[in-house]
Amino acid sequence: MTSFQEKVSGAWSKNNSLLCVGLDSEYSKLPQGLGPGISSLLSFNCNIVDATADLVCAYKLNAAFYAACNADVVIKESITYIKARYPHLLVILDSKRGDIGNTSQMYAREAFERYDADAVTVSPYLGTDSLEPFLSYKDKGTIVLCRTSNPGAKELQDLIVGERKLYQVVAKLAAERWNAQSNLALVVGATYPKELAEVREIVGDEIPLLLPGIGAQGGDVEAAVKAGRNRAGRGLIISSSRGIIYASSGADYPEAARREASKLVAQINAARA
Amino acid sequence: MTSFQEKVSGAWSKNNSLLCVGLDSEYSKLPQGLGPGISSLLSFNCNIVDATADLVCAYKLNAAFYAACNADVVIKESITYIKARYPHLLVILDSKRGDIGNTSQMYAREAFERYDADAVTVSPYLGTDSLEPFLSYKDKGTIVLCRTSNPGAKELQDLIVGERKLYQVVAKLAAERWNAQSNLALVVGATYPKELAEVREIVGDEIPLLLPGIGAQGGDVEAAVKAGRNRAGRGLIISSSRGIIYASSGADYPEAARREASKLVAQINAARA
Repeated sequence: MTSFQEKVSGAWSKNNSLLCVGLDSEYSKLPQGLGPGISSLLSFNCNIVDATADLVCAYKLNAAFYAACNADVVIKESITYIKARYPHLLVILDSKRGDIGNTSQMYAREAFERYDADAVTVSPYLGTDSLEPFLSYKDKGTIVLCRTSNPGAKELQDLIVGERKLYQVVAKLAAERWNAQSNLALVVGATYPKELAEVREIVGDEIPLLLPGIGAQGGDVEAAVKAGRNRAGRGLIISSSRGIIYASSGADYPEAARREASKLVAQINAARA
Repeated sequence: MTSFQEKVSGAWSKNNSLLCVGLDSEYSKLPQGLGPGISSLLSFNCNIVDATADLVCAYKLNAAFYAACNADVVIKESITYIKARYPHLLVILDSKRGDIGNTSQMYAREAFERYDADAVTVSPYLGTDSLEPFLSYKDKGTIVLCRTSNPGAKELQDLIVGERKLYQVVAKLAAERWNAQSNLALVVGATYPKELAEVREIVGDEIPLLLPGIGAQGGDVEAAVKAGRNRAGRGLIISSSRGIIYASSGADYPEAARREASKLVAQINAARA
């Protein structure tokens, strides 16, 4: 069994890339000509994946976009497609779950058995016993929200707790407690490089950081990479969704997505050096 | 359009009950003889509902149990069943979502349009902009996690932030900011009566509190009701799942569920007086 860290490390190496494409796919934004109903969402995802699979380390499926329109099956089929064709890449289910133990157990089963995702995003608000059912899947990744990319992130996450801010407490718990089996990662928004650097400082080199916020949310690539990379110039899974998948609303959307992904990889790799 | 508060108030009055039955239904715990596959989950839910609908104010569908086994359709069909037969009762989707604005918008659509739930549980960790898409459905309830019922709740929620604990900050934000349209509620575990009393003190009489933790989790009914009720002796939606729906593993499970629900209502109403 490949450990989560080996999987992430292999995914970074494969295409020499830290880029993750976020599949936040919506009916209302799909280009014309993809066919009817749910199959159009799946075709769109598969075409984006085929156009970018040699440029990325990961794909992230945002559960919300499928849950909103009764298209959960597209999550499953997209993951199956990616894993069959590109088994060296990481597939992340972004569903931000988290509940008391017996319920988290069910959410872990959803992510890792129903969908066979390699990793899932989880909220830390309920504490360690809400994370344990996820962490008990040793070869799967549990990606805990730490400092998110949105404007409201500061309202709770920046509150001062003793000598630290709340997100720093989460980072410390991650490093000292939750990562005992080396299968933990943290979400830190690319929109906040200062906070990102602080989290990297707290967690050391091993824990991967998932960075949303590049692209439509305005995060600066160079600043984010310099703040968040580990000493090996890796350690990041940098996610962009809308800026890549909706780069064109025409029939050339796969090529347009590829072009934007290439640009981002070049920017990221320049900043890693 | 009935406001959320009117809906909750009407649901409390209908059966003079603050009890919510949690439909955390699992294949492996179903009694024999319910038929094959997904239809057995739905039959089970419908039978529990029919046996208890004159005893409760609400039903709560725990999304995890359906998500784990690819049975999302049972959430939809159970809600449709309850709303068609018992339109005066509240239906809560317990999915504990929450993400950046454009994604929370999709989760709100999942809860309120795909499933037509009356209310949904949401995590506060991402702050106000993650809640706004839910709150913008004025006649629907947004139930924010405040002080949860699990052992790990204290790890983040009890951290001291200035003069308050984190869950008290959440309660204050709820009362002062998030409840501007009177469509907010909070989750506070019945397992922690002291914290429950503090939250009621902070939020005043108007905001309903959803109380998990009665039954299998060990919360004391009398202590919880006394700590959490408002001055009208209401203000609570007290949820019990396993203790009711799995009261019998035999064919008499509807009667057994009814018996347990009746007992709880009597205990709750004695404590309200």
